Amino acid sequence: MTRHGRFITLEGIEGAGKSTQVGGMAEYLRLRGMDVITTREPGGTPLAERLRAILLDPANSEMSQTAELLLLFAARADHLERLIRPALAAGCWVICDRFTDATYAYQSGGRGIDQAQIAQLEALVHGDLRPDLTFILDIPPDLGLARARRRRQGETDRFEAETLEFFTTARQVYLQLAQAQPGRYRIIDATVSLEQVQAQIRQSLAELINELEGRA
Amino acid sequence: MTRHGRFITLEGIEGAGKSTQVGGMAEYLRLRGMDVITTREPGGTPLAERLRAILLDPANSEMSQTAELLLLFAARADHLERLIRPALAAGCWVICDRFTDATYAYQSGGRGIDQAQIAQLEALVHGDLRPDLTFILDIPPDLGLARARRRRQGETDRFEAETLEFFTTARQVYLQLAQAQPGRYRIIDATVSLEQVQAQIRQSLAELINELEGRA
Ligand SMILES: Nc1ncnc2c1ncn2[C@@H]1O[C@H](COP(=O)(O)OP(=O)(O)O)[C@@H](O)[C@H]1O
Ligand SMILES: Nc1ncnc2c1ncn2[C@@H]1O[C@H](COP(=O)(O)OP(=O)(O)O)[C@@H](O)[C@H]1O
Ligand SMILES: [Mg+2]
Ligand SMILES: [Mg+2]
Repeated sequence: MTRHGRFITLEGIEGAGKSTQVGGMAEYLRLRGMDVITTREPGGTPLAERLRAILLDPANSEMSQTAELLLLFAARADHLERLIRPALAAGCWVICDRFTDATYAYQSGGRGIDQAQIAQLEALVHGDLRPDLTFILDIPPDLGLARARRRRQGETDRFEAETLEFFTTARQVYLQLAQAQPGRYRIIDATVSLEQVQAQIRQSLAELINELEGRA
Repeated sequence: MTRHGRFITLEGIEGAGKSTQVGGMAEYLRLRGMDVITTREPGGTPLAERLRAILLDPANSEMSQTAELLLLFAARADHLERLIRPALAAGCWVICDRFTDATYAYQSGGRGIDQAQIAQLEALVHGDLRPDLTFILDIPPDLGLARARRRRQGETDRFEAETLEFFTTARQVYLQLAQAQPGRYRIIDATVSLEQVQAQIRQSLAELINELEGRA
């Protein structure tokens, strides 16, 4: 019997430490015997990476909000159809750095787009598919932005260039999503050291695996 | 008093003669005293032209159908917000080579996407805005494709590479749209000479202007 893979996403504002954690999560799951791929949004397929470049390009600062929203879901549609769904169907675990929750946080929280519009596109693009587990790396925006600024060599991208207020509202939306559906989300204190963040995430992953093995 | 401009679209399958007619239509409307801009879809703004290049690129032949649909509407959202709506509001007439009817014809007719999904995106992206007048340049697909092949120098694009069956169904959808809403559409016999096509279009434009002047 092929067991269907699990879909795990990492969320949080800029500088929370998402991209830093992906590798260690994959390593841990592989130690526990899983096949794992890691990917990111926007991106993950050649087409979606081309759209990512457009979305992050500071030259497109004037992009219409609706265009931005549709581009994110266009990239996601390709990513789901050509990478995520086939991997899950093959029994592979998928760790994704950002997913649709980021669209709720940034485009609804940050930009003020109606959540119902996002939900409509979510239904169109991923039907019933939702992450099995979502880690929200929670951090105050000033601390996250300070980290992101330290990381960055060149130009800041279109999202990094947003205001503290944008990320404050985005963070609130993340926390509201988690509150509305506590089963799927784990809120992780991301202000602590890299190792402490990693330890919190591993514990949740261990619990998920124990649950699945108990059921098997 | 500033009179709101009129929005006129040209539709039809590959090789019907849309792009050939745009210039003459603008010239005629200018002779009649209108301010006119001409534009095209997908495209019309720098962002939308970048998306057009992605949509037409034969390297993206594997693109997910939903991604294609969302990219078309992303380009359209930018085009509407940054070019079409401001021009119309300024009293300018807008002639657009393809618009949302092409999405119904190609993505629903050609590809089989549910028309209700397209209608949902149409509502999201353009609300109540619809073209004031739409010319459907009607031509049998074999004749249209033969013309398009003659025009083309280099590689055929992602849509030109489609089958005769694709364009046969696309043409049917165009004719159904026109039948369902005869007030907005003019079906033009596009098999005749360039000058004869132009004459048919001018007559409809003249009628529209007379109507508007009668009302003024
Ligand atoms: N727990 C942590 N404590 C301190 N710095 C961290 C921590 N996690 C990540 N960083 C650093 O913060 C910066 C942003 O981390 P990153 O993983 O790129 O964030 P994100 O992907 O969420 O935007 C990087 O320079 C990274 O090395
Ligand atoms: N009425 C016509 N009769 C013959 N050839 C035409 C006519 N209209 C256009 N063409 C030619 O057919 C080709 C396709 O026309 P074009 O305007 O590019 O079509 P479309 O934009 O609808 O794909 C061009 O080479 C054009 O010169
Ligand atoms: Mg990151
Ligand atoms: Mg053309």
